[in-house]
Amino acid sequence: MNAFSDGVFAIAITLLILEIAVPAGSGDDLLSALGDQWPSYLAYFVSFATIGAVWFAHTVITEYLDHADSVLIRLNLLLLLVVSFLPFPTKLLAEYIHEADAERVAATVYGINLLLAILMVSVTWRYAVRGHLVKPDMADEDVKTLTKRLTPTLGLYVVMILLGLFLPLAAVVGYLALALFILIPFSAIRHRPSEA
Amino acid sequence: MNAFSDGVFAIAITLLILEIAVPAGSGDDLLSALGDQWPSYLAYFVSFATIGAVWFAHTVITEYLDHADSVLIRLNLLLLLVVSFLPFPTKLLAEYIHEADAERVAATVYGINLLLAILMVSVTWRYAVRGHLVKPDMADEDVKTLTKRLTPTLGLYVVMILLGLFLPLAAVVGYLALALFILIPFSAIRHRPSEA
Amino acid sequence: MNAFSDGVFAIAITLLILEIAVPAGSGDDLLSALGDQWPSYLAYFVSFATIGAVWFAHTVITEYLDHADSVLIRLNLLLLLVVSFLPFPTKLLAEYIHEADAERVAATVYGINLLLAILMVSVTWRYAVRGHLVKPDMADEDVKTLTKRLTPTLGLYVVMILLGLFLPLAAVVGYLALALFILIPFSAIRHRPSEA
Amino acid sequence: MNAFSDGVFAIAITLLILEIAVPAGSGDDLLSALGDQWPSYLAYFVSFATIGAVWFAHTVITEYLDHADSVLIRLNLLLLLVVSFLPFPTKLLAEYIHEADAERVAATVYGINLLLAILMVSVTWRYAVRGHLVKPDMADEDVKTLTKRLTPTLGLYVVMILLGLFLPLAAVVGYLALALFILIPFSAIRHRPSEA
Repeated sequence: MNAFSDGVFAIAITLLILEIAVPAGSGDDLLSALGDQWPSYLAYFVSFATIGAVWFAHTVITEYLDHADSVLIRLNLLLLLVVSFLPFPTKLLAEYIHEADAERVAATVYGINLLLAILMVSVTWRYAVRGHLVKPDMADEDVKTLTKRLTPTLGLYVVMILLGLFLPLAAVVGYLALALFILIPFSAIRHRPSEA
Repeated sequence: MNAFSDGVFAIAITLLILEIAVPAGSGDDLLSALGDQWPSYLAYFVSFATIGAVWFAHTVITEYLDHADSVLIRLNLLLLLVVSFLPFPTKLLAEYIHEADAERVAATVYGINLLLAILMVSVTWRYAVRGHLVKPDMADEDVKTLTKRLTPTLGLYVVMILLGLFLPLAAVVGYLALALFILIPFSAIRHRPSEA
Repeated sequence: MNAFSDGVFAIAITLLILEIAVPAGSGDDLLSALGDQWPSYLAYFVSFATIGAVWFAHTVITEYLDHADSVLIRLNLLLLLVVSFLPFPTKLLAEYIHEADAERVAATVYGINLLLAILMVSVTWRYAVRGHLVKPDMADEDVKTLTKRLTPTLGLYVVMILLGLFLPLAAVVGYLALALFILIPFSAIRHRPSEA
Repeated sequence: MNAFSDGVFAIAITLLILEIAVPAGSGDDLLSALGDQWPSYLAYFVSFATIGAVWFAHTVITEYLDHADSVLIRLNLLLLLVVSFLPFPTKLLAEYIHEADAERVAATVYGINLLLAILMVSVTWRYAVRGHLVKPDMADEDVKTLTKRLTPTLGLYVVMILLGLFLPLAAVVGYLALALFILIPFSAIRHRPSEA
């Protein structure tokens, strides 16, 4: 299960760059043409950070896992479905972020995809904890922290999606902040012993 | 053999998203333009579910495998050939599902590719069982169940291909149902002990 | 070294399908439009079989390897360079195989890429044998067979490239035959004990 | 961490070929049309060599690593971000290398991306050495050599970026030389014992 999942995460995160097209421009205008493409770079970084965060949470889960059961494997496939779909809303966002009205649609579709990705990681984690699939020698505190962090993040994604209906660009910046927020606590949880 | 196979499955399943193009539209029309693309999403989900199901069956087979022989490795390459070809008929289906007559051609080509993928998994499994390549400590009941499930599924794919000549869309929905049908029993077979 | 190499082989073999475009056509004409694309399918199958054969030879080599040295790792990178370049000549061949004169150019470029791939596998294998990097408990006969097979195949690729200057299509069919020829003896060499 | 990283490296290095488009041409003109595309081939080789060099340095680091901590995992994600971005400047360079003024912009953007990739490998290596994450049984001399080599290479990349403002093509050739320079010492460091 892990080799396949790691493969899907690695491919989804690397395919994002294919969505950025080389701009047409000549002479020194190329520099400003590249600058005008900032929505593409922003969408790229937000999606990269989010897939990175989801991959990281997934790594923590599989590290804690003692064994997988049939439900977990199907939950994992759903998670991969949602993650591998992300390049499409990313491209949508990059193309429409500056167009009045259309940018609201693009930011909402994008936010829903991000929410679903975090939701699936959260559901997978909760299922593993409740189903006692986690290793018995794992510190209980870590499990509690992980469980505590993922739920409020979900709520913040919903807030950002609603904000995106009025201020799409602010929501996108918010998605970047949320992804970075997930990336940081997880790593602290995971490697606390080695930092002591 | 496994790292390479898992890689091909992971790439084929993730490349599917590249086939969905961002629609042209402005303002709130973008929402309806996105809605009009439903054949692309449907084709995406059916192909994702089918590759997921084939990957899952492949995982069960390689888990049961005691050792590989030269024939099995070539059967496996044929399976990968058929799976990595799937993004093409998926794109074909997404583009032509609404056009009279052409949709019959697209649905038939698509169905034949799905049938070949399931057929190759089935052949690989039967070869492994007959060639005594499976581990001796494996429960016989599981082998029988796996063998029993794959053959009728093949027949149902043939039925769906024939149905698709008259009702292409119904056949595509049927392909989704078949992929989900394969996904569920396999996982139950595989992890029965852990659910006890 | 192996995870990276297997990844490159898996990606190169799966990217080939992206080169086949969905044809424009309506009604039952789609079937004939699909049929007219046969050069794309042929190029796809030949490249798939060749990358499959090179991957297979690479797997045999790494299985026999006792340890890698600095030269071998650089030879391996050169092999991956040549293999990951193949999707380009494949697309070239698919597009130009029917156009007078241009098809000779396309078939020659394609053949040279195939020759370089087989050459790099052969050089890597010979280096490993001469440098005594192969495991001491390996049967000498297998090494000799492997060494014997690769050299004449190289000669046949040169013959096919020359043939392609006059009969490009015949050369492409020949490349398919050569790839299948490599695929078969290697597997027989590799798994002889398990078939006894 | 390794499976995911190897996947991203393998995908980024293999995606480069998608940037080379098949030229339009007929008859024997195809040969000259292919020849006119030399900037695409040059950009492909430089990027392939650089990703190969970064992957190689990364492999040496992870081989020496005793354990990862939370900071290292985030540094690694930054490295992967920079590496997976490279196909975009590669395409930019291939398209604009012959156009006055625009080629200076393209070569500078490209050089900065290369510099960041080498910088991230260097930072990751220094962090691992200072944080005592390296295995205790590793020869100290190797660590010193690795540390010594990476710093001057960074300076040479800065020199090349400045040179590229006046002579873009010369800078690109310089980037190729630097990538090959990194590839060679690392392998010598790594496998010295086996060459004795």
